[in-house]
Amino acid sequence: MALIVQKYGGTSVADADRIKNVARRITQAKDRGDQVVVVVSAMGDTTDELIKLAYQINDRPDERELDMLLSTGEIISCTLLAMALEAMGYEAISLSGAQAGIRTDSTYSRARIQKVDPERIIRELEKGNIVIVAGFQGITDGMDITTLGRGGSDTTAVALAASLEAEVCQIYTDVEGVYTADPRIVPEAQPLAEIGYEEMLEMATYGAKVIHPRAVELGELFNVPILVASSFTDSPGTLIHGGVSMEVRNKVRGIAHDLDVAKITVVGVPDRPGIAAAIFESLAKANISIDTIVQNASINNITDLTFTVARSQLSKAMAVVKPIAQSIGARECVSDSKLGKVSIIGTGMQNTPGYAARMFGTLSEQGINIQLITTSEIRITCIIDEARVKDAVRVLHQAFELET
Amino acid sequence: MALIVQKYGGTSVADADRIKNVARRITQAKDRGDQVVVVVSAMGDTTDELIKLAYQINDRPDERELDMLLSTGEIISCTLLAMALEAMGYEAISLSGAQAGIRTDSTYSRARIQKVDPERIIRELEKGNIVIVAGFQGITDGMDITTLGRGGSDTTAVALAASLEAEVCQIYTDVEGVYTADPRIVPEAQPLAEIGYEEMLEMATYGAKVIHPRAVELGELFNVPILVASSFTDSPGTLIHGGVSMEVRNKVRGIAHDLDVAKITVVGVPDRPGIAAAIFESLAKANISIDTIVQNASINNITDLTFTVARSQLSKAMAVVKPIAQSIGARECVSDSKLGKVSIIGTGMQNTPGYAARMFGTLSEQGINIQLITTSEIRITCIIDEARVKDAVRVLHQAFELET
Repeated sequence: MALIVQKYGGTSVADADRIKNVARRITQAKDRGDQVVVVVSAMGDTTDELIKLAYQINDRPDERELDMLLSTGEIISCTLLAMALEAMGYEAISLSGAQAGIRTDSTYSRARIQKVDPERIIRELEKGNIVIVAGFQGITDGMDITTLGRGGSDTTAVALAASLEAEVCQIYTDVEGVYTADPRIVPEAQPLAEIGYEEMLEMATYGAKVIHPRAVELGELFNVPILVASSFTDSPGTLIHGGVSMEVRNKVRGIAHDLDVAKITVVGVPDRPGIAAAIFESLAKANISIDTIVQNASINNITDLTFTVARSQLSKAMAVVKPIAQSIGARECVSDSKLGKVSIIGTGMQNTPGYAARMFGTLSEQGINIQLITTSEIRITCIIDEARVKDAVRVLHQAFELET
Repeated sequence: MALIVQKYGGTSVADADRIKNVARRITQAKDRGDQVVVVVSAMGDTTDELIKLAYQINDRPDERELDMLLSTGEIISCTLLAMALEAMGYEAISLSGAQAGIRTDSTYSRARIQKVDPERIIRELEKGNIVIVAGFQGITDGMDITTLGRGGSDTTAVALAASLEAEVCQIYTDVEGVYTADPRIVPEAQPLAEIGYEEMLEMATYGAKVIHPRAVELGELFNVPILVASSFTDSPGTLIHGGVSMEVRNKVRGIAHDLDVAKITVVGVPDRPGIAAAIFESLAKANISIDTIVQNASINNITDLTFTVARSQLSKAMAVVKPIAQSIGARECVSDSKLGKVSIIGTGMQNTPGYAARMFGTLSEQGINIQLITTSEIRITCIIDEARVKDAVRVLHQAFELET
């Protein structure tokens, strides 16, 4: 008898029939004799609808109030799922984040889990209950409700799996697992049976939407094996874990891409200490996330500073940067919102030359111009024209022989 | 500076515009310098929609799960109301039943408030916040969410007013207060400026829907003055309190009526001890509320036993009673679902003869046949044909000179 944690996303519980379908899947695990804890997201568009309602009333809703409002979405889906299980003759109980002991800091709208007090969950499991936990939410020491922000329910699931020492955390979603590339772009893309935490982290961060990087990071930290699979089919899915064999690791594992890239270049920046800090501190204060930063080598103490942001944040970022650029005597600020990025990822490239050359060569052969390059030990990312991203994913998938 | 509790019902907060309207009313109290605690029901039909969703999934939903599901309705409305107040520049905070310290027993779907721990509310008031509390819900010692059943939000409001020692509990609804009779039936019905707790309790129990009897009872117990008024107009409303002057009390105060009456008669019951107990214990176990019970004088040790139930419970009640009737040797069970009741209410009739005679005479003059009669010290109720209830209300209103 194992203890497993399952997580079902919003599309998997979008209506009464889908909730019943999820209930059936849960009973299969229970019938195998496992203890089952299930984390569930809000039904379909519930969260978006609640946000819309809030903005009808206040165009800058207070974050504490918004979190308490949004937390109702997951309460609704988790109580309904418990009822569906009971209708099938199984004992089940729903728990809010507070009842499940998910304690967070009080950074509303993007709270961090500080600890999990799993006593209640354990007690309910011992009674024979299937335990359904509302994802995406927690409670502060002051008994205020928080939400965890993007990837919140995935994070709840992995955090519970860690604190309950579950055998595996199964993330069920509307895709069949992690692929070598987005199968909508590359029809020959192959599902990966397994992938390491770091590779998955890079994949997720650089565009693969299947699981939130935050949940992967937490999984790595507590060594929780995470299975990503479809809630609609019986395909085996992808296991994210730390024990991926060396052989498998010795190559590029996948191609990630992201179309949501905008670039800002501050041209003609005097190269003296404190300039970069002035710009990026102001952006951080405005709550704008910066992705890639590139600074050219200085010529005559004048340099260009380039960085990328999500497209939705471009105008806000420009509004922050322009006055600073002026005050420090930079020549101008230019932006480009029609960019994308493509990345090759694999622990195989660690300390192994040749990957970068092959990537740049492949793109060059196709006449794809590289605007910026960033790398980690296990990833190389090129920022290119948005219109060429799909081509780039396809040729790189071929060049690194991922279709076999 | 006074502390007041206001309660707004579901129709008063049915959409974004109405929520803003309620917010404006709340700010008027705040602007007068009062500390304001607001209790709010779920928006419009939210509760019914959640119940519908639950029954799509499970035709006998677990009561604990249903309570947790339904509790989201009031969380949504109270967070939105707090946001509306903040949009108008006021400091406000929403609190769930749990956060507001509403502690209940664990009788799901109809929990009783055991105590209120008002520390958090007091702390928020002292910070200058308008405090918005989710009505209809509480929390058990085991941290499970309960709902209070019918009249729940009214009860929450009066309980908070009692524990906070509020100057008044203002119940805002979609009617202008308590009338001498239902103004839709009697156009000359007069609004009552004030009414005593006991009279109001009889009025509410016997058909006036403006406030739930449970809230009135609680108000009486803790001597909380309750104002019932409209959230859409500025009419003064009706004050329910203990200090109604003797003069005002010395007459019939109102006519209540109720169309939801069904009658069951067990005919030819052997008159021996334990028979009535057998019937009513079984009905209680089946969770069927009995209203009026009448047993005729026994002739030859054979009697008829008649009682009334809500119409929706008639078939269930017949299913319980029929086998018992058979087993005790009664002749038959007959039912009538086309009944209504009409009551005259007033502390004035206490120890004063003549009221009953005038009531029966008035109905008789109109050819209205009385099927059953029940009385309390301050009320006389006649059960009559459903089709004649409105006529009865009109003629009694006139006979007891309530239009002046």
